[in-house]
Amino acid sequence: MTAAATETALFLRACQGETTPRPPVWMMRQAGRYLPEYRAVRAKADFLTMCRTPDLATEVTLQPVDLLGVDAAIIFSDILVIPEAMGLPLTVDEGVGPRFGKVVRTEAELAALQDPLADGKLEYVLTAIRQTRAELDGRVPLLGFAGAPWTLAAYMIEGQGTKNFSVAKRLLAEEPARAQRLLDLLGEAVGRYLVAQVEAGAQAVQLFDSWAGALAPEDYLRFALPPLAHAARVAQASGVPVIVFAPGAGWALPEIKAATGADVIGVDWHTRARDARQAVGGQQALQGNLDPTWLYGPPAQVRARTHEMIRAFQGGPHIANLGHGILPDTPVAGARAFIDAVKEWTA
Amino acid sequence: MTAAATETALFLRACQGETTPRPPVWMMRQAGRYLPEYRAVRAKADFLTMCRTPDLATEVTLQPVDLLGVDAAIIFSDILVIPEAMGLPLTVDEGVGPRFGKVVRTEAELAALQDPLADGKLEYVLTAIRQTRAELDGRVPLLGFAGAPWTLAAYMIEGQGTKNFSVAKRLLAEEPARAQRLLDLLGEAVGRYLVAQVEAGAQAVQLFDSWAGALAPEDYLRFALPPLAHAARVAQASGVPVIVFAPGAGWALPEIKAATGADVIGVDWHTRARDARQAVGGQQALQGNLDPTWLYGPPAQVRARTHEMIRAFQGGPHIANLGHGILPDTPVAGARAFIDAVKEWTA
Repeated sequence: MTAAATETALFLRACQGETTPRPPVWMMRQAGRYLPEYRAVRAKADFLTMCRTPDLATEVTLQPVDLLGVDAAIIFSDILVIPEAMGLPLTVDEGVGPRFGKVVRTEAELAALQDPLADGKLEYVLTAIRQTRAELDGRVPLLGFAGAPWTLAAYMIEGQGTKNFSVAKRLLAEEPARAQRLLDLLGEAVGRYLVAQVEAGAQAVQLFDSWAGALAPEDYLRFALPPLAHAARVAQASGVPVIVFAPGAGWALPEIKAATGADVIGVDWHTRARDARQAVGGQQALQGNLDPTWLYGPPAQVRARTHEMIRAFQGGPHIANLGHGILPDTPVAGARAFIDAVKEWTA
Repeated sequence: MTAAATETALFLRACQGETTPRPPVWMMRQAGRYLPEYRAVRAKADFLTMCRTPDLATEVTLQPVDLLGVDAAIIFSDILVIPEAMGLPLTVDEGVGPRFGKVVRTEAELAALQDPLADGKLEYVLTAIRQTRAELDGRVPLLGFAGAPWTLAAYMIEGQGTKNFSVAKRLLAEEPARAQRLLDLLGEAVGRYLVAQVEAGAQAVQLFDSWAGALAPEDYLRFALPPLAHAARVAQASGVPVIVFAPGAGWALPEIKAATGADVIGVDWHTRARDARQAVGGQQALQGNLDPTWLYGPPAQVRARTHEMIRAFQGGPHIANLGHGILPDTPVAGARAFIDAVKEWTA
């Protein structure tokens, strides 16, 4: 086994519940705007073109591996490619954020949704995965990902980002059965999409329930968790580790563990590592959770806080990560200090 | 004692730690845009003019008392009047939100801040309190309020609302001592401002740490909690109950209780009532926490959820409220169903 292959094993070993000598490390949104090399690609192509062009998606997926030495790559894509492939035209304007040309609120709009996996509509993602996997050549494992059903449903109902989720939550209150059908549909679609990613070469997959925090606990348990669990279990049956990350629902870690059976549970930066460990026990692999804004600080401080974070997660398997996506204005030196601090850690 | 005076007592009795036969009830932002009568006033004057005109502030403060029968009034004002009185020109544009003409980031900008209580700059708030108190004539108690130091500091550093608090949190990371001085200054100013409100007639006061959730736990405990506790204790020394509400920091309820000694601790809608009760014990008065979007639902559902919420808070003193400010597009019927459901409650 080469040194590189040992490193590859580190991430997957932690996913499988092993307490590794040091935690493997990667960063959510690590192929992103904080990297000048990413911005150079982005200057030539808009965000969605990058997603849809396997050469470009592969290029930026590899950047943090080559430049920062992370222990896992995650395919460059977007959670909203699923609703788009279901028939909602997507635009992403700088400064405005993603926006759909149609919404899903009525029975008719729900009935009009298409199977996102039919007609090769998402083939560009699978091609990018195959291509990235080949170019990685075993250096580090490749993750696939998808948005969780509730997060996708909220976008599809609202049609865009929102502060209060008034439209989506009004639908849950007024038409719970219809909302449930949309969520079930998405649970199935997301699960199958993750399986397709695994078949294309993804070695682990992460479900992002980015808007978990928009729902009160009772509603999260009733509406969001069952279809999330379904998607996770469908993906898991394909034989790779599944990571579930539900930022803003730190209270739900035991329920997420029980319902999804996730190999790894993500912890957001609002949740104390010790509380998370206590909530799920020492057998459960956890991933997280440095506050991304801490990377603004001087490197010595980043290093100290990273080591503090690792110590706080001790007592069970841990994958070091941020507790949210890295912010676009993060200094590269801060990101590098974080990665290096994890890699130099010895228990 | 008249029936009205008994009702008055209900809110203050709960504040003082008594488990009342039914919880008293009011709603954060109850004098707000969901009321047609509020919008009628707002059509004639912009938001800041309403704050600065005691007749108008009094009028809208009384609306939910007269129209919905809440058990407490809260003076119509804004948390940003303090930074404005410290020398930061404030504008509030519909759809854009509040914005300061200056920010506080450098030593010079910090040194230039003025005493917000000098020269009667906030006299308009105190006049509104005196006038509202007189017009209430003992029907229900009147609350004063202020923004907590961290929330105000974040606005002053950023200059406006923000998604990631990148500028404010970068300052905490890079210039912690300067940030600390700003927070200490605000802790003292906010405490004195609340005392002035009590002297004008406020019978209880609430501290809103609206952006508590923007800080990771370690940072909240280090930067935000000490000046919040200082302000709370200064206010409490004036002899009225103090309510502390730090949405997004549900994990911190025990620490907030210990540090601030608050008579009442607010609970946001992300936090389960039973978890909150367990975290602080049966002696501690709690306030909250219905998800405001639940008021979108049919009245029978609002009623059921309100009763469920009251049951979940049992085991100690409770003031029924929403877990966040009421949303502008809330149907009045939903707000009314909430208030009525609490008032009809019998244990």
